[in-house]
Amino acid sequence: MIIVMRKFAEKSEIERVIETVEQLELKPVPLYGIERTVIAVIGDERPVDEHHISSLPGVDRVMTVLDPYKLASRETKHEDTIIDLGDGVTVGGKKIAMMAGPCAVENEEQMETSAKAVKEAGVEIMRGGAYKPRTSPYSFEGLGVAGLELLQKTAKRHGLKTITEVMDVRDIDVVAQHADILQIGTRNMQNFNLLKEVGKTKKPVLLKRGMSATVKEFLLASEHIMKNGNPNVILCERGIRTFETETRNKLALATVPLVKQLSHLPIIVDPSHSTGKPSLVAPMIKASIACGADGILVDVHPKPEAALCDGDQAIRPEEFSKLMTELKPLAAAVNRTI
Amino acid sequence: MIIVMRKFAEKSEIERVIETVEQLELKPVPLYGIERTVIAVIGDERPVDEHHISSLPGVDRVMTVLDPYKLASRETKHEDTIIDLGDGVTVGGKKIAMMAGPCAVENEEQMETSAKAVKEAGVEIMRGGAYKPRTSPYSFEGLGVAGLELLQKTAKRHGLKTITEVMDVRDIDVVAQHADILQIGTRNMQNFNLLKEVGKTKKPVLLKRGMSATVKEFLLASEHIMKNGNPNVILCERGIRTFETETRNKLALATVPLVKQLSHLPIIVDPSHSTGKPSLVAPMIKASIACGADGILVDVHPKPEAALCDGDQAIRPEEFSKLMTELKPLAAAVNRTI
Amino acid sequence: MIIVMRKFAEKSEIERVIETVEQLELKPVPLYGIERTVIAVIGDERPVDEHHISSLPGVDRVMTVLDPYKLASRETKHEDTIIDLGDGVTVGGKKIAMMAGPCAVENEEQMETSAKAVKEAGVEIMRGGAYKPRTSPYSFEGLGVAGLELLQKTAKRHGLKTITEVMDVRDIDVVAQHADILQIGTRNMQNFNLLKEVGKTKKPVLLKRGMSATVKEFLLASEHIMKNGNPNVILCERGIRTFETETRNKLALATVPLVKQLSHLPIIVDPSHSTGKPSLVAPMIKASIACGADGILVDVHPKPEAALCDGDQAIRPEEFSKLMTELKPLAAAVNRTI
Amino acid sequence: MIIVMRKFAEKSEIERVIETVEQLELKPVPLYGIERTVIAVIGDERPVDEHHISSLPGVDRVMTVLDPYKLASRETKHEDTIIDLGDGVTVGGKKIAMMAGPCAVENEEQMETSAKAVKEAGVEIMRGGAYKPRTSPYSFEGLGVAGLELLQKTAKRHGLKTITEVMDVRDIDVVAQHADILQIGTRNMQNFNLLKEVGKTKKPVLLKRGMSATVKEFLLASEHIMKNGNPNVILCERGIRTFETETRNKLALATVPLVKQLSHLPIIVDPSHSTGKPSLVAPMIKASIACGADGILVDVHPKPEAALCDGDQAIRPEEFSKLMTELKPLAAAVNRTI
Repeated sequence: MIIVMRKFAEKSEIERVIETVEQLELKPVPLYGIERTVIAVIGDERPVDEHHISSLPGVDRVMTVLDPYKLASRETKHEDTIIDLGDGVTVGGKKIAMMAGPCAVENEEQMETSAKAVKEAGVEIMRGGAYKPRTSPYSFEGLGVAGLELLQKTAKRHGLKTITEVMDVRDIDVVAQHADILQIGTRNMQNFNLLKEVGKTKKPVLLKRGMSATVKEFLLASEHIMKNGNPNVILCERGIRTFETETRNKLALATVPLVKQLSHLPIIVDPSHSTGKPSLVAPMIKASIACGADGILVDVHPKPEAALCDGDQAIRPEEFSKLMTELKPLAAAVNRTI
Repeated sequence: MIIVMRKFAEKSEIERVIETVEQLELKPVPLYGIERTVIAVIGDERPVDEHHISSLPGVDRVMTVLDPYKLASRETKHEDTIIDLGDGVTVGGKKIAMMAGPCAVENEEQMETSAKAVKEAGVEIMRGGAYKPRTSPYSFEGLGVAGLELLQKTAKRHGLKTITEVMDVRDIDVVAQHADILQIGTRNMQNFNLLKEVGKTKKPVLLKRGMSATVKEFLLASEHIMKNGNPNVILCERGIRTFETETRNKLALATVPLVKQLSHLPIIVDPSHSTGKPSLVAPMIKASIACGADGILVDVHPKPEAALCDGDQAIRPEEFSKLMTELKPLAAAVNRTI
Repeated sequence: MIIVMRKFAEKSEIERVIETVEQLELKPVPLYGIERTVIAVIGDERPVDEHHISSLPGVDRVMTVLDPYKLASRETKHEDTIIDLGDGVTVGGKKIAMMAGPCAVENEEQMETSAKAVKEAGVEIMRGGAYKPRTSPYSFEGLGVAGLELLQKTAKRHGLKTITEVMDVRDIDVVAQHADILQIGTRNMQNFNLLKEVGKTKKPVLLKRGMSATVKEFLLASEHIMKNGNPNVILCERGIRTFETETRNKLALATVPLVKQLSHLPIIVDPSHSTGKPSLVAPMIKASIACGADGILVDVHPKPEAALCDGDQAIRPEEFSKLMTELKPLAAAVNRTI
Repeated sequence: MIIVMRKFAEKSEIERVIETVEQLELKPVPLYGIERTVIAVIGDERPVDEHHISSLPGVDRVMTVLDPYKLASRETKHEDTIIDLGDGVTVGGKKIAMMAGPCAVENEEQMETSAKAVKEAGVEIMRGGAYKPRTSPYSFEGLGVAGLELLQKTAKRHGLKTITEVMDVRDIDVVAQHADILQIGTRNMQNFNLLKEVGKTKKPVLLKRGMSATVKEFLLASEHIMKNGNPNVILCERGIRTFETETRNKLALATVPLVKQLSHLPIIVDPSHSTGKPSLVAPMIKASIACGADGILVDVHPKPEAALCDGDQAIRPEEFSKLMTELKPLAAAVNRTI
């Protein structure tokens, strides 16, 4: 921790900061510069609330040196984490994990057509939402438990693993019974009690980046899950919110290689919500794989124009199947399989 | 709803859109322009998912005409909503509602000193958090029920109303028993199940704007609460997240007069979290009142440097008391009292 | 300057950084922490390109301690700068400087009506653009020299000072001959050659904040002007670009007190471009004055619906005149005059 | 153009809007909805200033239907534009155009080493800045004409084409004499006079996206160049400014396929300025190519730690050479060559 004093800080103010640091059982090293005094702090700064220090009289600002997350850090665990879903299906290894299916579970026919299509295209994990967070209270909010059952039944029939969202601490048990991966949506990335509770299960959790979360906050959110005992976290970049309105969100792809440097956790990309335009989905999946994504979460719907949720960003099975073929040489070019 | 077709949309695509609109029992009016066809839709578009339309072949984009919120809209209810907390304390009327106190409830002495100070300065509503959402899992998370009890006991002794945050659906009952206003934090503005559940109580709810929420989403979040039966919503602007890092968040004050034009709900301002700097709190409170805010939620702590949470943005009782005096002529200048 | 090494930086890498710092004639102080080594640098870091250091092997990041601007800094000059326009008109003193008039100079009648109106309302400085930066090449770009002449002639007749924009280094001379304040628009805040050239004149310069500029970059832009010999810089907050689309830009008003703490330069606010809505102009002018703005730059147009530029954000003379009356008690409440 | 009236707009207000539209020689079609009246406008809306309409009494907002740019639009010109630099070097065709070299021209040795390295790696276009826009007035600003001469001489010796930045209208002639492509930097994307003047030359222009420019504004900036007679525009995505501070800017890669749908102009990517981290350059180049970029502009410096400008984002020749080899199969996988 580096404490920068104001230019005209008084001697007594500097001394008080030094004392405070000592009371925290850390070692202060005052450096008297040409214009300002800086106090470097030696020791583990993580348990210290930097605001304690920055609110002391005479302090201008405090800069932290250590990354605030530990369990998620590449410095703590060097080798890549590989999440094992059973039956040879993994996320984080050499094989790129494709997760595809409709945004929302709607009915048997839709699920059956979708499952067949994604399976044939080579996918191992099916997506489908039973609980849908909706900006407007007048929109379709999902089928709930009936949706979970339909997802599980259909996926089993086709030998697919499943991923589905959980929005409420009261639903964790039932969702965990029906799905292989618990998805935490972008609006809940900092719903800390939800993170804690999924942390108490051992189920793999896919954590979507908040639409205005920094990478640091994203990794700290994963830390909330891991600290409660669940190391099986998959990160998901899904686009951030910016001033640009042509695309729904802005897919900040540099997050992928950056997170792989900072953390050992696998990171996948959602090209559907990040762009909001079917015509941009295929190019952004290619870009994601090229820069090292460990997987893709994509909306595929047999009839986008009839979808009950986000139909305008889903691609059709034919298109998806053609794309999967195009991805093979691309994956090979970056030394991955698909 | 206005449906803009692509430049080279085929006749069959246009016809399909027209049919789809008719099936929704709305009236399509096709307009054949020089370059594109536009289909205007007459009727109540709110129950329609615009994504259904925008995913039809040949559609370029869909623009909605009606505001997506109803209950929160000034068009639905002309006169200002005034929230009554009992004992003559209101939010939304001519008198500006000051809510002051520490960020987190810590101990008896801190609460007693704070309550005394804010009461003497003329405040009627005391703040104090018992459940604290924290970015890092290693930070102080609040005293929970013990904190609620301490807040209630201290406030009662001084004849103050109370406001405190609720983060979890499972805690709504206990929080509602101990506080006069339920606060929904910025990270939970789109925690829809939490909104629904507080909507089922009749307790006044203070809803903080999400740090990257548009004004439309902010009002739609209040709609989630109102639609479930609770009309007592107080909106709170607390700064948005932008590229600027000198201040913690950017207080987008134009939200205040804008929301007052769009909605009948009262709107207050939190100058502490929005700036993150005590030296900016007083000027921003003045600015808020000058542009029409119905109240202020401010961190006041007897010993900011010892605070367990966000001490670096709290102001001291002496400073707050002086400020309250300065606010009187200012409030009068915009025809309000304080 | 604080240099944070990577966790596993090698000894030779640390030594090379120390040597490099010494070659720059600064004093390195290595601090060996529990996880990382930090090298504090003592001396004037400003002439050093931090990227030199951050690109050395083993360096994780570099944090600067001193503010990068000097001439604009409050630390360099304690007392407020007051810009003297002659005839008793100033910017930066106790009296709030109102600058009002149409966005673009259009014709004699429009200018005469505007000048009369703003003069009668108590304004001392008239605005009017002769060169207009326009996003689309198909929009009205201003009358050029004829516009400058019309502005000067009309203002003189009414005893008003003038402000107008200069966009091109080749126009500085002619603009300086016709106006009292040279305005640098938001899109040119980092047009460094333009800043340099206006820095070589002694004319007061109003520098608008770039719509995505940080406060640091804003002050550094003023430094470009001052370093070339012109200390007469007036800063202007005009809103920043964010994700929110309800208002044209977001007026980040905390910039006003923040800049007054960091710098001695006067800062004014443009409520017209920052909101883009006439109905928000009056409340935001009030808020600006309440938080300490030294002046206001506002679009007033006798016939907004016929304006050749930005008519949708101008207010009418009647409305402006009424507002000026309302501002008097408000200014008094914050110990200013208007 | 779609004009949405306020909910309680008066009949006379609606009639005035209709008359105004007729005076503009466009055809108004009023649509009386359940809550609001909407007036659709048929005809070419582009020459109309929408603010004229939106400032009329009773108008709530105006939505434009046609894209505001014409010459840059894919609707105007279907086939891809290919820029011919002579000697078989092109930008926009099947072959991906690599532009590499140091950020700033510094001295003969640096230029010679760089030229040799990039030529051997298979590059055809060399970059090198002689005029450098710098945030701080205390930073190195480039060698000027001497830099241009050094760039030209070195490039010629190695049979390389050149690209270099022009910041000032007064320098266009001399830069055009020494370079094959004129670069307009991100801070000058809306320096409209500079755009106009490079539009009057016939030299290829590389236009960098403003760091907070929308895609619409980006294409409108290219329109300023094209409208003045120069169709040879190359667009360059270089990252946008957001709240995230881990990377210098955020590379919004979806811009690439989006721009290719909206426009016929070639678009390339700058991975160096967009990330600011050498370790992210290679993955982001791969991602750019995978999603369809027509070229790459990359900082390569023989000694990043001694660079006079942005050394911390340059990659070394060895690394670049290795990367070029890895790009070949990747380019092939998306049906391109390199």
